[in-house]
Amino acid sequence: MAHWLPIKSILAQPELIGTTVTAKGWLRSKRDSKAGISFLAIHDGSHFDALQSVVANTLTNYDTEVLPLSTGCAVAVTGELVASQGKGQTVEIQASQVEVIGGVDDPEAYPIAKKRHSFEYLRTQAHLRPRTNTFGAITRIRHVAAQAIHELFSREGFYWVNTPIITASDCEGAGELFRVSHLDWNNLPRKPDGSVDQSQDFFGDEAFLTVSGQLALESHCLAMSKVYSFGPTFRAENSHTSRHLAEFWMVEPEIAFADLNDNAELAERLLKHVIARVLDRCEVDMAFFEQRIDDTVISRLRNILDNAFERMTYTEAIAILERSKEQFEFPVRWGIDMASEHERYLAEKHVGRPVVVTDYPSDIKAFYMRLNDDGKTVAAMDVLAPGVGEIIGGSQREDRLDVLDSRMEPQLREDLWWYRDLRRYGSVPHAGFGLGFERLLAYLTGMDNVRDVIPFPRTPGHADF
Amino acid sequence: MAHWLPIKSILAQPELIGTTVTAKGWLRSKRDSKAGISFLAIHDGSHFDALQSVVANTLTNYDTEVLPLSTGCAVAVTGELVASQGKGQTVEIQASQVEVIGGVDDPEAYPIAKKRHSFEYLRTQAHLRPRTNTFGAITRIRHVAAQAIHELFSREGFYWVNTPIITASDCEGAGELFRVSHLDWNNLPRKPDGSVDQSQDFFGDEAFLTVSGQLALESHCLAMSKVYSFGPTFRAENSHTSRHLAEFWMVEPEIAFADLNDNAELAERLLKHVIARVLDRCEVDMAFFEQRIDDTVISRLRNILDNAFERMTYTEAIAILERSKEQFEFPVRWGIDMASEHERYLAEKHVGRPVVVTDYPSDIKAFYMRLNDDGKTVAAMDVLAPGVGEIIGGSQREDRLDVLDSRMEPQLREDLWWYRDLRRYGSVPHAGFGLGFERLLAYLTGMDNVRDVIPFPRTPGHADF
Repeated sequence: MAHWLPIKSILAQPELIGTTVTAKGWLRSKRDSKAGISFLAIHDGSHFDALQSVVANTLTNYDTEVLPLSTGCAVAVTGELVASQGKGQTVEIQASQVEVIGGVDDPEAYPIAKKRHSFEYLRTQAHLRPRTNTFGAITRIRHVAAQAIHELFSREGFYWVNTPIITASDCEGAGELFRVSHLDWNNLPRKPDGSVDQSQDFFGDEAFLTVSGQLALESHCLAMSKVYSFGPTFRAENSHTSRHLAEFWMVEPEIAFADLNDNAELAERLLKHVIARVLDRCEVDMAFFEQRIDDTVISRLRNILDNAFERMTYTEAIAILERSKEQFEFPVRWGIDMASEHERYLAEKHVGRPVVVTDYPSDIKAFYMRLNDDGKTVAAMDVLAPGVGEIIGGSQREDRLDVLDSRMEPQLREDLWWYRDLRRYGSVPHAGFGLGFERLLAYLTGMDNVRDVIPFPRTPGHADF
Repeated sequence: MAHWLPIKSILAQPELIGTTVTAKGWLRSKRDSKAGISFLAIHDGSHFDALQSVVANTLTNYDTEVLPLSTGCAVAVTGELVASQGKGQTVEIQASQVEVIGGVDDPEAYPIAKKRHSFEYLRTQAHLRPRTNTFGAITRIRHVAAQAIHELFSREGFYWVNTPIITASDCEGAGELFRVSHLDWNNLPRKPDGSVDQSQDFFGDEAFLTVSGQLALESHCLAMSKVYSFGPTFRAENSHTSRHLAEFWMVEPEIAFADLNDNAELAERLLKHVIARVLDRCEVDMAFFEQRIDDTVISRLRNILDNAFERMTYTEAIAILERSKEQFEFPVRWGIDMASEHERYLAEKHVGRPVVVTDYPSDIKAFYMRLNDDGKTVAAMDVLAPGVGEIIGGSQREDRLDVLDSRMEPQLREDLWWYRDLRRYGSVPHAGFGLGFERLLAYLTGMDNVRDVIPFPRTPGHADF
């Protein structure tokens, strides 16, 4: 039997020329010449490029099986690998055998038969869209980026900690939380006052989907020194923007014996490592995004690789915005939560590369961020990138119990008794950040919408598939 | 300033002897000699072994800060690294400086002050337990095992596909599903018939937490050829056993152009690769588990590495069980869903190494498993391992639409229109399996209870932290 190889391996090994190989995959396109020869372009997901197979009408099943083939059919093609005469490929298979593994009963009805479909339409065909050029490439880049994240952290001595998805703590604001329950909805147990008796639910109390692994992660940071979570995260926000998903993947490192500066340096190393890996290992896929999606994407990524991130304080950033001649929709003054237009001005127009903005007003930031000595700012940081705005948000954590307590409501202090414990027993300076993985992928590929860089997007009204 | 290094690096580099180093971490123990010398054992999570630091009373803060130190305090110790005279370590720091970073206000109240605690108790201190020997080691092994999984799949050309957590499909049995909702519980919208109006919920329909990424994964398999998911999975089972969690991590590969035999071979390669990596990279941690938890754990793992997995059909397995002289609690006959006692007899007593049992009765297996030509069995497989029983379950998938349809109820056919599409457009033989990551970790470490190999276990009544 011939040697079955992934198309990626066949394309990468010119020394296979002259040998008999088998490729298995799906038909991306077929062209039939008048001379009785068909050209099949076969993809199997291993590489952006399809493998061309030349099939002559001398094959016994040419008329009965090869000619009727249409886009989407699954085939196994065996034959000699030869240098290609045609343009667009270096090698091709001279088929001595074409086996039809799976047909397409009604080619007209095949939902992705056409060459071009809108991304909106393809979301309704999320089970088939990875077969297209664009979504195949995204799947490969997503994998390479994710592995690069694991690789950098492993190399630097971090441990992947799988923080819980279901949590009883709603400390980040109940409005954005999805409830998790195993009660019968049409027959909810009631307390005497008529409210739902949560104690009868699966976990004996209210439970929600996590909005961040950070708090749980801090406990492991204060034992293992360097940890990260990388998992799904949830927001029940009724946002219909290109930057929001109800379910998304987040990367959250947490480092002990570290301050905001160490945190910013880690963020820079992480982003640069992922970019370098993707540019190196997904060259053909990235060339596609450069050509078809965003013709600045590669230069933008190279620009990040080649330059140190700028640093500025929030106070400096506000001064820059105030001095600028820019007409902003939202007025600028010290104390505001910067809008996307402000962030993009800083990164794109003022600096021209990523900028780490630090030391935000405490009033607009979370209780767990470390209060600076000025008493009015906290050791927070946002990494703003040209073309996308905020891509990372993080902080040094408040490690002093009395200061932490002063920023927590009594109920929160009670719920987070264990989080307070971390400040009572061997508390150390520590810091961390969150990186939205889909926002990173949109940035890496130039794709406009985060719904198109996750396999099955969940948004208001949509949990299909 | 002295060179701050992870303890792992200090222990691994004898060439550092004679240089000044800094270690930062938490006090595991302290011993004060009558001669005015204190011995601090410091851990930072980077290695199983603590680093010993010898502190003389000539240090200016010896009486005020060093002597009062207790287990759990965070310190930075700087001094010359010397060859150790004592037993139990090869090197130690002769401290020239001890900085107390974070104290323990009331040492008696420190929840994990004692040397030995029950695992049950430590679950109530899940925020502190990674500081103990056992849970530090588990955190490291969990990381190494997870990376080994990514590594094997990457090397073999698989893509990590993040299948959705929230799903509208309840095809695997609604009883085990957690509901996800954003409705106000105390004010649920009602339809005219009084039932809850699900259409007003966040996703416009009922939504649940996934019990498996498999079905979604198949769609990517039939585009990318080799894919896997590795993420959290949920079961609302009211199980209080040592093998069940309401939230656990699952590894699910899916391969195209593949049958049950390819599937079994992949399962064997995966398990062996993970075991080899853990034995190689976590030698000291594994020696601890061998010594303290299960004195057969390393030999059991080596036995797996050194032998090919046994294969037998379900029909053969039943015959073996029937011929055995064993007194089983549950009677054996063809058609039963084997109980744990049967599985363990096969793996432990009959074969003595992992065994892949294939071709189960279709009546006890899921609709998506491929029907064999005999019409009564399906191409399913379970990998049974000595000491744990079933560790992997998988199957070749039914790739023929008519056969698939015959095993689906009309409602399911409607809900899974997209899954059926995969059999209409370029269907190919494909197969996959699921590996419960916590069961694997329990197996790797000899830990009895899966609650002790996940950072924050979720079980009936428990979603703490």
